[in-house]
Amino acid sequence: MRQEKNETKNESKQELQTTRAAKSERVAKSKNSGSVKVIPLGGLGQIGMNMTVIEYEDTMIVIDCGLAFPSEDMLGIDLVIPDITYLKNNIDKLKGFVITHGHEDHIGALPYVLREINAPVYGTKLTIALIENKLKEHNMLKTTKRKVVKHGQSINLGCFRIEFIKTNHSIADACAIAVFTPAGTILHTGDFKIDYTPVFGEPADLQRFAELGKKGVLAMMCESTNAMRPGFTMSERTVGKTFDAIFAEHKNNRIIVATFASNVDRVQQVINSAYKYGRKVVIEGRSMVNVIGTASELGYIDIPEGTLIDIEHLRNYAPEQTVLITTGSQGESLAALSRMASSLHKKVTIMPNDVVILSSTPIPGNEKAVARVVNELSMKGAEVISQDTHVSGHACQEEIKLMYSLIHPKYALPVHGEYRHLMAQKGIAESMGIPKENILIMAAGDVVELSEESIRQTGRVQAGSVLVDGLGVGDVGNIVLRDRQNLAQNGIIVVVLTLERYTNQLLAGPDIVSRGFVYVREAESLMDEAKAVVDNALYDCLDRHVSDWSKIKNVIRDSLSEFLWKKMKRNPMILPIIMEV
Amino acid sequence: MRQEKNETKNESKQELQTTRAAKSERVAKSKNSGSVKVIPLGGLGQIGMNMTVIEYEDTMIVIDCGLAFPSEDMLGIDLVIPDITYLKNNIDKLKGFVITHGHEDHIGALPYVLREINAPVYGTKLTIALIENKLKEHNMLKTTKRKVVKHGQSINLGCFRIEFIKTNHSIADACAIAVFTPAGTILHTGDFKIDYTPVFGEPADLQRFAELGKKGVLAMMCESTNAMRPGFTMSERTVGKTFDAIFAEHKNNRIIVATFASNVDRVQQVINSAYKYGRKVVIEGRSMVNVIGTASELGYIDIPEGTLIDIEHLRNYAPEQTVLITTGSQGESLAALSRMASSLHKKVTIMPNDVVILSSTPIPGNEKAVARVVNELSMKGAEVISQDTHVSGHACQEEIKLMYSLIHPKYALPVHGEYRHLMAQKGIAESMGIPKENILIMAAGDVVELSEESIRQTGRVQAGSVLVDGLGVGDVGNIVLRDRQNLAQNGIIVVVLTLERYTNQLLAGPDIVSRGFVYVREAESLMDEAKAVVDNALYDCLDRHVSDWSKIKNVIRDSLSEFLWKKMKRNPMILPIIMEV
Repeated sequence: MRQEKNETKNESKQELQTTRAAKSERVAKSKNSGSVKVIPLGGLGQIGMNMTVIEYEDTMIVIDCGLAFPSEDMLGIDLVIPDITYLKNNIDKLKGFVITHGHEDHIGALPYVLREINAPVYGTKLTIALIENKLKEHNMLKTTKRKVVKHGQSINLGCFRIEFIKTNHSIADACAIAVFTPAGTILHTGDFKIDYTPVFGEPADLQRFAELGKKGVLAMMCESTNAMRPGFTMSERTVGKTFDAIFAEHKNNRIIVATFASNVDRVQQVINSAYKYGRKVVIEGRSMVNVIGTASELGYIDIPEGTLIDIEHLRNYAPEQTVLITTGSQGESLAALSRMASSLHKKVTIMPNDVVILSSTPIPGNEKAVARVVNELSMKGAEVISQDTHVSGHACQEEIKLMYSLIHPKYALPVHGEYRHLMAQKGIAESMGIPKENILIMAAGDVVELSEESIRQTGRVQAGSVLVDGLGVGDVGNIVLRDRQNLAQNGIIVVVLTLERYTNQLLAGPDIVSRGFVYVREAESLMDEAKAVVDNALYDCLDRHVSDWSKIKNVIRDSLSEFLWKKMKRNPMILPIIMEV
Repeated sequence: MRQEKNETKNESKQELQTTRAAKSERVAKSKNSGSVKVIPLGGLGQIGMNMTVIEYEDTMIVIDCGLAFPSEDMLGIDLVIPDITYLKNNIDKLKGFVITHGHEDHIGALPYVLREINAPVYGTKLTIALIENKLKEHNMLKTTKRKVVKHGQSINLGCFRIEFIKTNHSIADACAIAVFTPAGTILHTGDFKIDYTPVFGEPADLQRFAELGKKGVLAMMCESTNAMRPGFTMSERTVGKTFDAIFAEHKNNRIIVATFASNVDRVQQVINSAYKYGRKVVIEGRSMVNVIGTASELGYIDIPEGTLIDIEHLRNYAPEQTVLITTGSQGESLAALSRMASSLHKKVTIMPNDVVILSSTPIPGNEKAVARVVNELSMKGAEVISQDTHVSGHACQEEIKLMYSLIHPKYALPVHGEYRHLMAQKGIAESMGIPKENILIMAAGDVVELSEESIRQTGRVQAGSVLVDGLGVGDVGNIVLRDRQNLAQNGIIVVVLTLERYTNQLLAGPDIVSRGFVYVREAESLMDEAKAVVDNALYDCLDRHVSDWSKIKNVIRDSLSEFLWKKMKRNPMILPIIMEV
């Protein structure tokens, strides 16, 4: 499958290797020398925006290039990407982006980053296909070099050999990345779980992990998402059994299943149950249609002939002969399920006999949105089922221990999680015999130098969040956000007046206009009083021949602000504008 | 204890009865006649704002008078209270407020409501004491009649007899309310759980519930919070056992426990463990200090001599000899625990050896705030424990079934919950043999008429949410909220210009000022282009001698809006202001 679906070639330095042979052994057996730098540019202490630099002399690669979704205080922001100043400053060293899997928090920043730094992208088949969908949308397909790598294969980038190792996750084709550097081997697990009986493909390549561990791994960067959860994450197949049971029990109901668009195996299992119980399947929701289309083209999902029907043909079947698979399991207000729940969906109306399966758990922060959708569905009489209808894609404590057991790294660098998760993994690593001083909790921008002799944070580089608002990248910063927060809480009062040049004579105003402050018709007397306060402040300034306009503005702002706080205990933004004639 | 701590008297019509005797039996045994109205004014389909009207001819009482906390789309709003137009229109019928327990969602609206409708308030000792704290803050203690009623006692209000029946909940002194009306008995459970081994006082009075059920209950209004959870809620005492185990295991650490201020029994159990392990206790956080002060005065908490110390004396003790009990278990940014976590607390600094016990589960919507606090504590090296450190105060499915078993009402009116919870209770009621047609899911404002013969929704009255922002009650409505949302998402652009009266000659401007839109220094060229767009639009109007200012404003707004959407995919609020000289 070399190069299939790839339009560009970039084989000059980097060469695909189809076996795990030769070179790797040589690197591993030769005495490790020098120190390698690990520089996370995101993905630590917050959800999303995964990006890690690995650097040795003039070789630099980046593992993952994800976005984050804005936190609730980032008002009006669409998405967040990592600050890549450090990459821009070291563009000559950068050999490429190595991607572990196709989730947004690992690939979502690529179109923004590649626009500024053109470097080749490496990943497994589905991952690259999903990246290509993204690049197509941004009209960047032609300008981006990309290469599909198989599990077990390696590529050479600069002085690194990079091996893609099979893991399991809630999206197909997930990999751990082993980076063989002159200073030793670094293993990045990516997001993973151990599924001995996956729905599609093979279980995680535990033998290869063991082999690497046996040869010696300098450092492991293991994900931490579920590091606070005891036990093992259940196999994806257990969800299929629940689906079968629900389908068996609800033979007289239409069934609607909401899940993540990218969870192709989950969709496969719904289709399996639907086929088994003789139902037709409708796929609904833009991202669901896109991902399942791609997965189907590439052979990652098996849909029996005649099972899929178009949503337009839904009316031709009795409700109990159909299943809808849809987006919106996180309560996203624009997704298909939310629109169905609030009667805004053009083609699907929720009926009292419907059964809705929520096949996901709310991502932290989405709980209320999900509850709102469930309430709306309940009001319409639908039954909502969410028990045993989801398993996580992330390793719980026992799987993390298994990974430490197999790899037995010299150093542990927990990644992918909030601080409480990173700290939980630290505890696990200690319990697995890694000395405390060999475990480092990193922050974005930390430069960590690793060698056989030591692990040390030796510096800091610029790192942080760049906010994307509409087409603007980075033009909304703290000042704008603070203004938006103030406006959101209290609204704005604009005070305008016109003064005559030189004489400072008042020609018009002061006029007061407010937005988001108070319903003016209900509060006419308040606004009259406010006007009087502004008048007094202004006339006082003019009487005293204050000619510095910024002083006049300050006096107006302060007196109005004091009045409103005393009177209303409110603090609107006050914006005095003076015009000059 | 008749009248103790009550400064006002109001015994005219309403008379306290110290036994469950005489009258009740008479009412219950006499043939029921007529129909009684139940009108919920809040507490359905959303969390908080509990308020239910019970009405028979010229007798009307209100059960509970709670507030709700604003949902995330209610920008800048401090709290939400029910619309009481219906009460105001029927003030002559209103005999009083009957309160089930002292939580904010049951008492919090009282100061606002009593300001408009002065009626007496009835409740058990701690409930009335907490209401008095509130009234004191609002300077309304003297104008409000209130009366303490004991569990098992009854009061007469108009043609109703009202009995307060002991239940258990996460605050002491919780009651169910039995309203004996000429049309039959209505039982409102309030918020409850069944705790056979409560920390303070007696278990719920199951015998009385059984007795009422035996005599015949027309309708039960049972709370629904945990109606989706199988099983039984564990006894409060189980948390004490966890505390003991944690204290035993962490003899060398300072312990900080965060919980709800109103959960006096929880605080009692921390104090018990502290005393047992020879630690001094500091109470921290304004509401915690207030509630525990009140509870202590009234004898609802037992603090051994010499156990409590002032926070100022904390430094005199070794960390491992102390326990802090604090507010902030919900991640509230201004509460004590949050301030400690973010190094903003003046008197307590988190140390790497600290153990923090979160003795609560996040209320839906607070998950991210709690996670943020845990992350900050983890970063400072504190260990955070939240396993088995909390039990709910609400009845799970088996307890709800127990209540239906004892009461066996003719009609079921699920209350206190979102729709999914109400629907879950409906399912439980059906499973307990209540005919489907005898179960009614109400919405705020529904008028439900009940008699031996039928249950019907017969009308609607005005009901809804009144927003409180600072000192303003009801002056922020949908228009203001929509403006705040728009401002929050996109910011504002103000365009000002001065025209000469009659001639419409441009004297000054147009000037453009923006807030919360874009960081202007980074986007100078954008703002220049925007200015040009406005100039063109304006000159075009003036050239064409458009004299209608609202038309000029519209042209400016539309052209600027179109430009910004095309250029930036953003939609700021645009506010053109024309001054006249």
